[in-house]
Amino acid sequence: MTNLDAYRISSEPFYRPVESEIALFEAAHKSRMPVMLKGPTGCGKTRFVEHMAWRLGKPLITVSCHEDMTASDLVGRYLLDTDGTVWHDGPLTLAVREGAICYLDEIVEARQDTTVVIHSLTDDRRILPLEKKNEVVRAHPDFQVVISYNPGYQSVLKDLKESTKQRFGAIAFGYPSPDIEAEIVAREAGIDRRTAEVLVRIAERSRNLKGQGLEEGASTRMLINAGLLVAAGIAIEAACQVAMVVPITDDPDLRDALTGAIAACL
Amino acid sequence: MTNLDAYRISSEPFYRPVESEIALFEAAHKSRMPVMLKGPTGCGKTRFVEHMAWRLGKPLITVSCHEDMTASDLVGRYLLDTDGTVWHDGPLTLAVREGAICYLDEIVEARQDTTVVIHSLTDDRRILPLEKKNEVVRAHPDFQVVISYNPGYQSVLKDLKESTKQRFGAIAFGYPSPDIEAEIVAREAGIDRRTAEVLVRIAERSRNLKGQGLEEGASTRMLINAGLLVAAGIAIEAACQVAMVVPITDDPDLRDALTGAIAACL
Amino acid sequence: MTNLDAYRISSEPFYRPVESEIALFEAAHKSRMPVMLKGPTGCGKTRFVEHMAWRLGKPLITVSCHEDMTASDLVGRYLLDTDGTVWHDGPLTLAVREGAICYLDEIVEARQDTTVVIHSLTDDRRILPLEKKNEVVRAHPDFQVVISYNPGYQSVLKDLKESTKQRFGAIAFGYPSPDIEAEIVAREAGIDRRTAEVLVRIAERSRNLKGQGLEEGASTRMLINAGLLVAAGIAIEAACQVAMVVPITDDPDLRDALTGAIAACL
Amino acid sequence: MTNLDAYRISSEPFYRPVESEIALFEAAHKSRMPVMLKGPTGCGKTRFVEHMAWRLGKPLITVSCHEDMTASDLVGRYLLDTDGTVWHDGPLTLAVREGAICYLDEIVEARQDTTVVIHSLTDDRRILPLEKKNEVVRAHPDFQVVISYNPGYQSVLKDLKESTKQRFGAIAFGYPSPDIEAEIVAREAGIDRRTAEVLVRIAERSRNLKGQGLEEGASTRMLINAGLLVAAGIAIEAACQVAMVVPITDDPDLRDALTGAIAACL
Amino acid sequence: MTNLDAYRISSEPFYRPVESEIALFEAAHKSRMPVMLKGPTGCGKTRFVEHMAWRLGKPLITVSCHEDMTASDLVGRYLLDTDGTVWHDGPLTLAVREGAICYLDEIVEARQDTTVVIHSLTDDRRILPLEKKNEVVRAHPDFQVVISYNPGYQSVLKDLKESTKQRFGAIAFGYPSPDIEAEIVAREAGIDRRTAEVLVRIAERSRNLKGQGLEEGASTRMLINAGLLVAAGIAIEAACQVAMVVPITDDPDLRDALTGAIAACL
Amino acid sequence: MTNLDAYRISSEPFYRPVESEIALFEAAHKSRMPVMLKGPTGCGKTRFVEHMAWRLGKPLITVSCHEDMTASDLVGRYLLDTDGTVWHDGPLTLAVREGAICYLDEIVEARQDTTVVIHSLTDDRRILPLEKKNEVVRAHPDFQVVISYNPGYQSVLKDLKESTKQRFGAIAFGYPSPDIEAEIVAREAGIDRRTAEVLVRIAERSRNLKGQGLEEGASTRMLINAGLLVAAGIAIEAACQVAMVVPITDDPDLRDALTGAIAACL
Repeated sequence: MTNLDAYRISSEPFYRPVESEIALFEAAHKSRMPVMLKGPTGCGKTRFVEHMAWRLGKPLITVSCHEDMTASDLVGRYLLDTDGTVWHDGPLTLAVREGAICYLDEIVEARQDTTVVIHSLTDDRRILPLEKKNEVVRAHPDFQVVISYNPGYQSVLKDLKESTKQRFGAIAFGYPSPDIEAEIVAREAGIDRRTAEVLVRIAERSRNLKGQGLEEGASTRMLINAGLLVAAGIAIEAACQVAMVVPITDDPDLRDALTGAIAACL
Repeated sequence: MTNLDAYRISSEPFYRPVESEIALFEAAHKSRMPVMLKGPTGCGKTRFVEHMAWRLGKPLITVSCHEDMTASDLVGRYLLDTDGTVWHDGPLTLAVREGAICYLDEIVEARQDTTVVIHSLTDDRRILPLEKKNEVVRAHPDFQVVISYNPGYQSVLKDLKESTKQRFGAIAFGYPSPDIEAEIVAREAGIDRRTAEVLVRIAERSRNLKGQGLEEGASTRMLINAGLLVAAGIAIEAACQVAMVVPITDDPDLRDALTGAIAACL
Repeated sequence: MTNLDAYRISSEPFYRPVESEIALFEAAHKSRMPVMLKGPTGCGKTRFVEHMAWRLGKPLITVSCHEDMTASDLVGRYLLDTDGTVWHDGPLTLAVREGAICYLDEIVEARQDTTVVIHSLTDDRRILPLEKKNEVVRAHPDFQVVISYNPGYQSVLKDLKESTKQRFGAIAFGYPSPDIEAEIVAREAGIDRRTAEVLVRIAERSRNLKGQGLEEGASTRMLINAGLLVAAGIAIEAACQVAMVVPITDDPDLRDALTGAIAACL
Repeated sequence: MTNLDAYRISSEPFYRPVESEIALFEAAHKSRMPVMLKGPTGCGKTRFVEHMAWRLGKPLITVSCHEDMTASDLVGRYLLDTDGTVWHDGPLTLAVREGAICYLDEIVEARQDTTVVIHSLTDDRRILPLEKKNEVVRAHPDFQVVISYNPGYQSVLKDLKESTKQRFGAIAFGYPSPDIEAEIVAREAGIDRRTAEVLVRIAERSRNLKGQGLEEGASTRMLINAGLLVAAGIAIEAACQVAMVVPITDDPDLRDALTGAIAACL
Repeated sequence: MTNLDAYRISSEPFYRPVESEIALFEAAHKSRMPVMLKGPTGCGKTRFVEHMAWRLGKPLITVSCHEDMTASDLVGRYLLDTDGTVWHDGPLTLAVREGAICYLDEIVEARQDTTVVIHSLTDDRRILPLEKKNEVVRAHPDFQVVISYNPGYQSVLKDLKESTKQRFGAIAFGYPSPDIEAEIVAREAGIDRRTAEVLVRIAERSRNLKGQGLEEGASTRMLINAGLLVAAGIAIEAACQVAMVVPITDDPDLRDALTGAIAACL
Repeated sequence: MTNLDAYRISSEPFYRPVESEIALFEAAHKSRMPVMLKGPTGCGKTRFVEHMAWRLGKPLITVSCHEDMTASDLVGRYLLDTDGTVWHDGPLTLAVREGAICYLDEIVEARQDTTVVIHSLTDDRRILPLEKKNEVVRAHPDFQVVISYNPGYQSVLKDLKESTKQRFGAIAFGYPSPDIEAEIVAREAGIDRRTAEVLVRIAERSRNLKGQGLEEGASTRMLINAGLLVAAGIAIEAACQVAMVVPITDDPDLRDALTGAIAACL
């Protein structure tokens, strides 16, 4: 009844490879090995998985995980209908049955039942027991699990269990090199290369402040936001304030440091 | 079936610009960049977003966030009907489908699932997966997310995640300059300019007590309340007690300090 | 369908004014300013709001707040009917639609969603968005919010947010002067003035013990209870024990101190 | 439809008065003043309220409170029926409508919403707002609230609010004098007076150990249990072990002390 | 409609009495006194209550309590049927109506509402108010409550309330004497007496390690498990490892100590 | 209606025995003794139970436990149907009725009600009371409970109760000897023996780092993942990074140590 057409990616999502991540993902995909994408906020993990889904011609079902998400949100539930209760597959079950890549974004945020539910799908059993239905769904040959994981966030209290981690092949992501990042920012924001390079230089200085009061430095995404404001006619200093300073800190010293970094690069 | 007429603002909400906030918002709106309005209680953030919605001719759906709000409160849920369960769009989904500005007031108060639900809407994907329906809603071209954020409130335990913050362009608000504030108070409370100036002077003294036992000084909203009482025939000292002292502190020393501040300005 | 007749107060509730509280409330009511009544337990806040509702000829909807109360308890919910789910307005929505004074007693006890729900009703918007219904209720011109607040109870963990407090005009209440209190007690308990004066003298001594192990001294309500027992034939010492000592402390020293206070006044 | 016949007490419950508690309760009942019965476990509070209900010819609805009890458990709820949802009065509402004494046993154990729900019933308003029904039930003239309260149990975290306590007249209970207690035990257990006196002497020694490792000494109820075992042919030492030692402590020293106390009294 | 045939015990459960526990239980049963069985894990409390139910010819309803159990799990609930909601008695209500022994295993694990629900059944009232039904069930003359309680488990945070404990006659259980225990193990595991004696000697050594890192020593149940493995052809050392060492500790030193204890007894 | 065909294992799951675990399991199975499989993540416990189910010709129902799992998830629940509520057996009840091996994976993660529910099934009673149905299911003669338990995970706060542990025979698992492990890795990943031996040597070094910052060393499962990447054309160093380093640590020193271990073995 349901099919995956809504989850197919019809046009190529722009992705600028940095190292061998495409080859590694393709190798893992061959045996449908579960893949963990590790890296900081806004460095392109979500874009990468969209690109790979397009490249491999597989539908992609993305679930943004959060701490109130339950296993039922993934697996499905009974809903009351005029004909009594009817089972509705959740996004994971849909991916398992029909053969999609299921991308669980920031899975570590979810409750443990969400994590445990993928265990039987990420070893050689490749089954999903729907306990409430007494049904055992065998995974479609194309089904693959991908998760994202931000190493900066995890704490002792909130981390994946060892028995979950060990099931995954992991690919590490970082911010791209200055050249590549300027290319990305210019393209995505629709600004000239020189302005993009200025923004990248500002980002580098911002990233150096990480750990000195700043939780994370400016991400590629923030540079694109600054670029978009410039493209809309805002002066570059003001654009950087709006996109790269005000959103991330209220500390006057840090604001000064960031404002100084911006001035130094112009 | 549902349309957004109830959410259109028919007459111009009075807003007195302070700096370049209107131009910044308009630039961000051009690329539908998510916007974060930062500033203390009662300084005019809500009024600003109403003004901008009117100015841009866009419907505005406002949601006051709180710690018991769930993603379903935003996104929608199945309700039981005579024909079985029927899906009802929540306010966010309505805004996404029909193209409104969705204003999430004090989003940091909400549970994390509420915050995470906007992630796929605030990057270039601009989609809202309704997991319980297996539907992916692509955002209407006019849809934009605006959130408010009070820097004084956040703590380590309750703050937006870095991966949320980095998606937003942010505009900082403060209390207006004395001149502008007196203009606003006189207009909104229906009192003469001289009385309004007295109230603004009292507010300035009150704001200086912030951090000395007072969580926040008097907001513009409180000045308007004092003005309304004066307009209703209450003496200015009594009006200031009712609107600017008794609501915010029970500490005898602070009450004395505030009472002194009032006396000094009359 | 529903109307407010059940909430109209047909006969004048006895209220003995102490200061200018009636004038202040009437001034606030003129602009429908939200009002906060501050003061200790049993000093007459609830009686005052009933008196004002009667005086102003407005229906009064009172809600006793508690920590398990949700926004739905105030706003309304869908109930399942033979014709599917039907929306039932909660007490706040009823007051908003039909134009009543809505009195939220001890609102600080409630969960934050209850508090936040009144934000859009307590600024110039005066709207109540029923998110679950996608309906925006504009307040009836007579609608006004009144809340009570006991300064002795609040702690850092459980207090109103600054952004809530600043919306209210606040009137402070205390115990009435001895003369007025004796008048009230004699009238309400049906005892002679002399006995009432004795009870008030005992109350004053009891209130002096506040902070020396006693959380609060005897309230006017407790004096009336003692008076009622006297009127029913119980000796005054025994009546004071039952109404003013045993209910509030189990500490032998405090019981002795209170018993001594009673003996000293007879 | 529902009536209170099931809650009438047809035969006199045996109650042996200790002081003037019957007169005090009757005086409070005259003005339907809320009554709080204070005292240790098993000293006869429940029996007293049953006796008073019988004496006054009023039906008695008893609710054993516990920490998972909600206001709905007291007030009522909508239940789904073939004709849609139908309201079912809870035990408190039943008592309010039909005029019963409502006895809330160990109310301090309940969640705060349960406590707050009785506020409007325990001042001169005597109303119960059924918020979910938009109905205001005015109390039947015979309705009275009685609560029990064990001073030994309360802690800072779990106590009645001052605003609740101050609404009640309170009667303190303790264990009866030896003579009266022996009379009670002999009667209830069906044993001879001499054996009952031995049990009472053992109880006195046990009560002296309170605070020396024992949370509470032997209650009258425990003496009756011991008496019942003796009446069933068990030797008095063994009966005392089963009814008065083993249930309350596993500490070997305390067991020895209690065993010594038993031996000393035989 | 429902009857208790499913809960009758048709053949005598083997129980080897150790002291006078059968006589004590029978005496308590005469007046239907609530009985508490105290003792360590696996010493035969459950078997004893099954034996007594068979001996007294009474049906036995056993409920294993746990921390997520609610009063409704015991008392009953409304279920939705084609004819609307229909009340279904829980196991306790069934026992109360029809006259069974209701055995609440490890009641201290349950939430307090579960504990409080038995209060009115364990004093002379012997009633069970079904508050949700406004029904008061009077206990069948044969109804009796039995609970089990393991003194080693309780902590300050999780213990029965004094007002619960004082309602019970209590019988203390321990491990049987070596002779009796060997008899039990030989019979239940189907092994020869000599092997059983060896197992009992090992158990004694294991029990001596209690408090030296071991939470509890080997129970009779564990000896039977070891015996069953021996009967199935496993060597006695391996059987003791599987049944008496590996399940209870992962500490290498304790494993060595237990292994040494096994070797010493062979 | 339901039968267990979906839970039968049709072809032999590869299992390489390490010690006498097959004989021990078969002996325990003879008397249907509950079995606990103890050992670290990814060492083959799940594969072993699948192998044993195949070997013994019994259907296997596996449940991955997690901290949000309730007893109802195991036992069953009422679902609303057109004919009213209908009971649906959960996976445990299905196994009990029809005679399957029920494998509760990582049971210690589950809430206590899940653990307690198996108590009456794991002593000689072998019954499952379905309290919500007032039904007592007697276990099919083939029913057996198997649980897994990772000693490295348990803490004081989250462990099985002694009364649960003592019901089980326990079999300890570790990583296989190098020879056997290489055989397993070569077979499962489809790589040559020499490469598998290299991977095993790397794993040994990784396991030596356990406790020096690494929660657990490389499991057999991780070696197979590395092998699969090699088989897909990835160089062995890169494959080890993806499968054995990046997933389990973000600490730069540990990454260096692991990278050094890989280099040393090539």
